[in-house]
This record gives sequence, C-alpha cells and structure tokens, in this order.
Amino acid sequence: MRILHIGLGPLGRKLIQDLYGRGLGELAGAVDVAADLAGKPVSRVVEGVRCALPVLDSLERFRDWKSVDCAIVTTSSALETCAPTLRALLERGIPVVSTCEELVWPWLRQAALAEQLDRLARRRGARLLGTGVNPGFVMDALPLFATAVCRKVDGLHVWRIQDASTRRVPFQRKIGVGLSESEFVERVVAGGLRHVGLGESLHLLAHHLGWTIDHWDEELSIVRAKSPLKSGLGKVARGRGAGIRQVAHGYEGEVLRIVLEFQASIGQRDPHDRVLVRGEPELDLRVEGGIHGDVATSAIALNAAAVLPNAAPGLHTMASLPLVHCAPAREPRAKRAARGAVARR
Amino acid sequence: MRILHIGLGPLGRKLIQDLYGRGLGELAGAVDVAADLAGKPVSRVVEGVRCALPVLDSLERFRDWKSVDCAIVTTSSALETCAPTLRALLERGIPVVSTCEELVWPWLRQAALAEQLDRLARRRGARLLGTGVNPGFVMDALPLFATAVCRKVDGLHVWRIQDASTRRVPFQRKIGVGLSESEFVERVVAGGLRHVGLGESLHLLAHHLGWTIDHWDEELSIVRAKSPLKSGLGKVARGRGAGIRQVAHGYEGEVLRIVLEFQASIGQRDPHDRVLVRGEPELDLRVEGGIHGDVATSAIALNAAAVLPNAAPGLHTMASLPLVHCAPAREPRAKRAARGAVARR
Repeated sequence: MRILHIGLGPLGRKLIQDLYGRGLGELAGAVDVAADLAGKPVSRVVEGVRCALPVLDSLERFRDWKSVDCAIVTTSSALETCAPTLRALLERGIPVVSTCEELVWPWLRQAALAEQLDRLARRRGARLLGTGVNPGFVMDALPLFATAVCRKVDGLHVWRIQDASTRRVPFQRKIGVGLSESEFVERVVAGGLRHVGLGESLHLLAHHLGWTIDHWDEELSIVRAKSPLKSGLGKVARGRGAGIRQVAHGYEGEVLRIVLEFQASIGQRDPHDRVLVRGEPELDLRVEGGIHGDVATSAIALNAAAVLPNAAPGLHTMASLPLVHCAPAREPRAKRAARGAVARR
Repeated sequence: MRILHIGLGPLGRKLIQDLYGRGLGELAGAVDVAADLAGKPVSRVVEGVRCALPVLDSLERFRDWKSVDCAIVTTSSALETCAPTLRALLERGIPVVSTCEELVWPWLRQAALAEQLDRLARRRGARLLGTGVNPGFVMDALPLFATAVCRKVDGLHVWRIQDASTRRVPFQRKIGVGLSESEFVERVVAGGLRHVGLGESLHLLAHHLGWTIDHWDEELSIVRAKSPLKSGLGKVARGRGAGIRQVAHGYEGEVLRIVLEFQASIGQRDPHDRVLVRGEPELDLRVEGGIHGDVATSAIALNAAAVLPNAAPGLHTMASLPLVHCAPAREPRAKRAARGAVARR
C-alpha cells in the first residue's frame, strides 16, 4: 500500500509510524502546510520511520500520482476546511480516507458539500470515507452492526466512558483538564472545547435504522475532580476540571430513539464502551476498559485504507463499506515468523 | 421486498412470519419438497401470516421470477445438498441469501463448488451469501469487525456459552439433551449431533487477518447434568446429557491463532458471548446473556436480504458485504407511530 499522507500533526505522525511499523506499506508522499517542516525528509519529522522523501508544504507540489494507492487526510475536524484538499485528491481519481469528524456523516452539517464531493468522486472514479474510532466506530458503526441480529430495534443507548489519564496531553487539554468552571464555559463558548462527532454518530445510526430525527440536542458539562489529581498538564486541584461529559439525544416525534453518552476524565473509574439495544432480542454489549482512542484512530484509518480501494466509486460511510478489519502486513509469513510471534499452545 | 422462500422448516416459517410481522415485505413464492404441504396456501402452513400463495413442491413450478427481489434458502447445513437449488436461483440472476452453515465460508469444505457458484453468480449478475447468527455473526463477523480498531492482532479467543433451556426443542435434541454418554458418542459418530460452523468461522477469521491455518482441530464433548434438570424433552437425570461443548483451535505453524469455544446446555449458568482480541489494543468484548439464536438467525437472514441486492455480483461473505443492520420496515412513519412506539422521555 503506497500512501499519500496529508497532515503531519500528532495523529498523522502516529499513522505514518504505524504504516511502516505494521508492515502495511510505505509513503508515496507527505504534505503539511507548516513552514518549519517543508523540505525536511520524513525521517526527521516522524520518529522511527526511515523515509527520505521531503515533506511538501502544498499538495500542488506533489507529482508522483501514479504511485498512490490511497490518500489519508488528517488535517481538520471541519469538512469545509478539508474540502479543497479532498477535491484535489478526488479529481485525481484516488481513494481518500480522512479522520475529519464531520465527514463520518457529512449530511448532518454539510449536506450540499457532501453531495458535491459524492458527485465528484463518482465522476472521477474516486472513493471518499470519513472514519475514526469515535466518530466512526464505537458509537455508530459498531452499534449499527450489532443490530444485524435484531428483528426489531426501538432504541439505542451507547456509552463511551474513558479514563483520560492514559491519553496524550493534547487530548487532556481538549477536554478541559485543570480548568475552573468559568474557564471551562468560556472555552466551550469559544468553540475549542468539545468532542466533535456525537451528532454525526447519531444521524448515521438513525438513517440506517429508518428513524427520522425531528429533534436532537447535545448537553455538555464539566466533570469536576473529587480529589486532587495528577494529569499530563500538572496537578488538578479538587473541584477543578477533570474532564468533560457530553450527552446527545435524538427524538423521532416524541420518541427518544438514541442516547449517546460520552465522558472522558482523569481518574475516571470503570472506563468502558457499552451498547444497549432496546429491541428483539435486547442486546447489551460491553467493551471492558473501553477502546483506547490514540491507538485505535490511527489503526482504523489504515485498516479502512486497505478496504476502500475495492469499494464502488463515491462518498462512503463505515456502513456502506465492506467490513473493515485489522489489515494484515504485506510481508511474507517466513519474515513475520522471524520477528517472533508468540507461541501459546 | 418480495421474497422467494425455499425451505419451510421451523426456521423458514419463523422467517416468513418475521418478513410479514416486521413489515419488511411479502412472499413472491414459497417452496418445500414436503408432499403434505404441496398446494396448501401459505396462510395454512405458516401461523399468523396472511398469504394465499400455494406452497410449491418444486422450484421448477415457480413462474413469477420478475417479481422476486431476493431468494432465501433454509434447507440444509450442507452446501452440496443446497447446490442444485442455489444454481437454479443464480441462473435467474437473483440475489440469494442462505442459512446453509457451510456457505458462510464455503472454501473450507467445498472450495471447487464455491468457485463454481461464484463464477455462475458473476456471469448471471446474481449474488449469493451464507449467513446466520452462528456461523455468520457471533464467532466470525463480529470478532472480525472488532479488529477494525487494532493496529495488530496476535490471536482471537471467542466464547459462545448458551443456556439451552430457552431454545426450541429441536435445538435441545440437536445438542444431545437427556442422552447417556454412550448414546451421545453414538450420535456424534453417526453425524447427527454437533453444531456446524466452527471451522467455517475459524477460516473466515484467519483469511481476513492474514493467517495461514496449517492445522486445526475441533473437540466435542458431552456436558453432564450436575443435578436433575427440566428440559423441553422431559426430565434429565443427574449425569446424563445437559448439552454439548465444542472447541476449535486454529494454528499457524506452532502458533495458536484462534480458539472458538461453543457450549450450549440446559441450565447453563452465566450465558454470554465474548470476544477477546490479543493485540494492540487488546479488546475484551462481551454480550451479556448472549444473543438468542432462534430470534437472531431469522433476523440476520432478512437483514442481509435487504443489503445483498446492492452488492456487486458474485459469492459474498459477511465480510465482503456492506454493514448488515436491522432493516427498517417499509411502512410510512405515520402508520408506524399508530402502531404505538413507546415514548421514553
């Protein structure tokens, strides 16, 4: 798999490390607008990766289109921001995976843009997918797939309850660790503090389960430290922000169809992901400890990139794609064995 | 959705009841070789269904091919037995879903036949899928999809531990309830007693995770009643069969990659389905109480029938198909509301 990667933030770098570390393939190119990266070999920007290609500061400088199997875009949560990049890639007819949260179900906030990208992709024989661990899997694709065994679904309740202690510092900052309540509210109003994607997950689920969402809301509140805590941002005093809680509700008429509860805080007890399907049969599915976001987001983007090129042209979602799964390394078995898989007879 | 249904055993009848009961569609035709059903209206064969079509004793008598959206075949666990029916349907270019266990991963026991059916389907623009709750979901498609968030998978361990008390009598008979150990062994040797599909699930998983299975085995043993039990087949004395336990192991070289544990017995404590992914991240996914087989098998076959016609022509598996999910009723929202969805604000 030869990947053209756009966006060398923490996630993009992790993804490139995984591309090489997993033996999935190599870079066809790397692009980032940051002036201080331009021209540097990828090896000097992404730790642990041997790749002499220079980082390009613009997609326009990229030439080697024929060598690209798939592009991956990790630049922004906002589809409008990503759109020029996505358009340029789709014009070339190549498959594109992005971790842009709004792209997981773009018809919610960017319906016109979604239609436009879909038409462009079809016309050029390209494919486009938004994915991630959440949105993209835990609170949408996984619950949706669970209903495959149901003759009837009346409602869904999904929990993602995370201990943020083990997450990277930018994530801890994003959920307001250490803030006072007034600072928290200020940051929420300014728009920099929140998990993006509950609305996208909710509408992806509703669409496929045949529910018209007449009304939906999203509540956001601070999770306060009940005792002094240690975090990646320093000590957190009792009463200050340990994290965030967001709950989305989706109604069909007066009927509450979907509840999505997202909570991430330092020292959170009993972290887990859980899907409760009200229906026949009723299902209660639980992932003990929860799925770790930092590892999983890079993983699912690469795993999706292995599947997307075989799908029909157009704008896809995790629901329209064949089953995404851990993509095996492209290396021969003998070599893999030499690296030492653990025998467990 | 207009369904041509072949096979009016307990599962086929349940499926037709669900087709109508769920508001998914109606029958285009119904076929069963049983002489005592021939010519009877479906209404008299399938309880609770209003359908005047006569049951046909052979597919050759069916004429109304243009009205069929999908065929469903619930006749046999053995692909060779189903093959003439499948061929006749694929020749007509229509999508076919079957609960034939061997068809879930036909390359294991019927590779040549699988290739032949695939070629036929492609040539005629038809689609073919084998599915069910197990094999088809709990021990293969669901664990495979769980690995979507993994950067690495070293092995999989899947449990399906069922309390057979709530299952229908034929199922209880199939797992040897009430038998002595010697009767149990006799029935196993004769071939009538066992869950079919562990091998299929194992090979579907291995294929997509890039493991070559060099050796695999399947152990089968009686689960004895520890105290007297009540069952659908009468009282079970202490020490006699309460059910069955089957464990499959799949090895790549000396490395144990996959363990599938299936156990179904009367009075089984703590029934559950569980998927343990050894890898990065490690995942421990559990369905509390387990997924009820009788409801779920009919459900997933109909849900797959709603998705299959949109897939590319050929022989499919649950992994090559877009995400199967609970198919919504085809009735308008107003009517559905009138039937009374439960408000839960």
